[in-house]
Amino acid sequence: MSGLAGIGLERLSLNQATVKYLGLKDVVALCARHEIPAIGLWRDRVAEIGLSSAAAAVRGAGLYVSSLCRGGFFTRADADGRLAAAADNRAALTEAASLGADALVLVCGGLVPGSRDLGLARRMVADAIGDLVPEAQRLGVRLGIEALHPMFCADRSVIASLGEAIDLALTFPADAVGVVVDTYHVWWDARLADEIARASGRIVGYQVCDWVLPLPADPLLGRGHVGDGVIDFGPISAAVTAAGYDGFVEVEIFNAAVWAAPADQTAATVRERFAAVLGGGPVDRNAPRL
Amino acid sequence: MSGLAGIGLERLSLNQATVKYLGLKDVVALCARHEIPAIGLWRDRVAEIGLSSAAAAVRGAGLYVSSLCRGGFFTRADADGRLAAAADNRAALTEAASLGADALVLVCGGLVPGSRDLGLARRMVADAIGDLVPEAQRLGVRLGIEALHPMFCADRSVIASLGEAIDLALTFPADAVGVVVDTYHVWWDARLADEIARASGRIVGYQVCDWVLPLPADPLLGRGHVGDGVIDFGPISAAVTAAGYDGFVEVEIFNAAVWAAPADQTAATVRERFAAVLGGGPVDRNAPRL
Repeated sequence: MSGLAGIGLERLSLNQATVKYLGLKDVVALCARHEIPAIGLWRDRVAEIGLSSAAAAVRGAGLYVSSLCRGGFFTRADADGRLAAAADNRAALTEAASLGADALVLVCGGLVPGSRDLGLARRMVADAIGDLVPEAQRLGVRLGIEALHPMFCADRSVIASLGEAIDLALTFPADAVGVVVDTYHVWWDARLADEIARASGRIVGYQVCDWVLPLPADPLLGRGHVGDGVIDFGPISAAVTAAGYDGFVEVEIFNAAVWAAPADQTAATVRERFAAVLGGGPVDRNAPRL
Repeated sequence: MSGLAGIGLERLSLNQATVKYLGLKDVVALCARHEIPAIGLWRDRVAEIGLSSAAAAVRGAGLYVSSLCRGGFFTRADADGRLAAAADNRAALTEAASLGADALVLVCGGLVPGSRDLGLARRMVADAIGDLVPEAQRLGVRLGIEALHPMFCADRSVIASLGEAIDLALTFPADAVGVVVDTYHVWWDARLADEIARASGRIVGYQVCDWVLPLPADPLLGRGHVGDGVIDFGPISAAVTAAGYDGFVEVEIFNAAVWAAPADQTAATVRERFAAVLGGGPVDRNAPRL
């Protein structure tokens, strides 16, 4: 049975992108109402109310901050752009530290505008992460390289497989750089179990949502509630656990229908599915709703 | 410069899916008009005029058949379905032999209906290919395992990276099973050069088209003419050549706008771009039309 990895609700984190239309304080209140112990924050929603108000709100509610989304987008064509990206990422690290976030999630950026050179883009990512390492260490925040699905390679992240993210992370100190495993982006990989094992000690975040068919017109929004799609969460969760990750597990869903639903309904579904699918409950994992 | 791999027009093959709305005899005539020496055929278009007429048409025009598309779709839920798939693939091998095709391209199939078990689907693919090996050897046709882009893993091919396709091919005799490298499906892979090198002697087909942004509503149709997108064809072509592949290079484009264009215009563009981008001509590879 897939669900037997057994990740309990005490490790559930709600990434606020799942309830896209709520401001930060409303998501904090939502988590409190639904006994969700942790939250993944987004910088735009933090900025909206100010960093100290945001930090106070999550602390006041006793919420743990599992991640701050997001840094990255390092692949700029000109030196000014790269300097601006570096400054923005240092600011993100400061915010992550103030918020007490476990990790700053990095979406590294696609091809350099005007170029088809994947190698160039990847070297630019590696250099930019290297430049951030001292600041990450000083602040005690880990950078989490997130491999995005290969369908986003051109325009969002040239780091397009978990193996590649790990190769990159391993070139930096473990207290500064790790990887974020997101089921949506990596579930298809025949080498996934081996790669996760190789990431032992380097996993700084685990995000879950499902791959639903058909893909929508906007491929960014093809994510579903856990259990609504084809991903077999059991083996992935078991591998992540075996690799030593015992932190929070973020549910992060980009989906227009989920966003349109009442937030309390979404939060209830998130909890229910998390318990049933990740917690090892008695859900029939062989009857996907495709 | 990317184009310096230098694959000449004498190695150009037009996959007939690029001019989807033409019947087989019209595509044969199109190739003759545009001095395209080879063709990739599709079984439905062969069936439409009958196998012997199709074989006579391509031979009469002096066209080489670089591949027959396609076999595969092995992942069926029930034994009857798997038997039907096996019979259909044996028929496809017979057709490929009659047409003198270099290879039968295999699109292996997605998850087994009603199941989320990637391992099960992959074992089913391996078993089914193994069962076809003796017939492929008897007929002298090679099975070409095509790794599809990971965005098609759920519904079209659980073989979702070139490395995985090679791992699978290497378990069978080289005269029976190889891999098809399609730029659209594998361009994003950080390990691509190494994987292509590992495929030495096993590459039975090389297909090209470009990755254009944004992805269209139907992700099957997001392919562009060579040069219209972000793929750097030079390094991939050089790696394929270094791995010993000296066969035809098929241009295969699924794109509604390309299909709607006059076929002669499409054929002319295919030739032009092939010469400029793959042939090493003086095209400005740093100015993508995105």
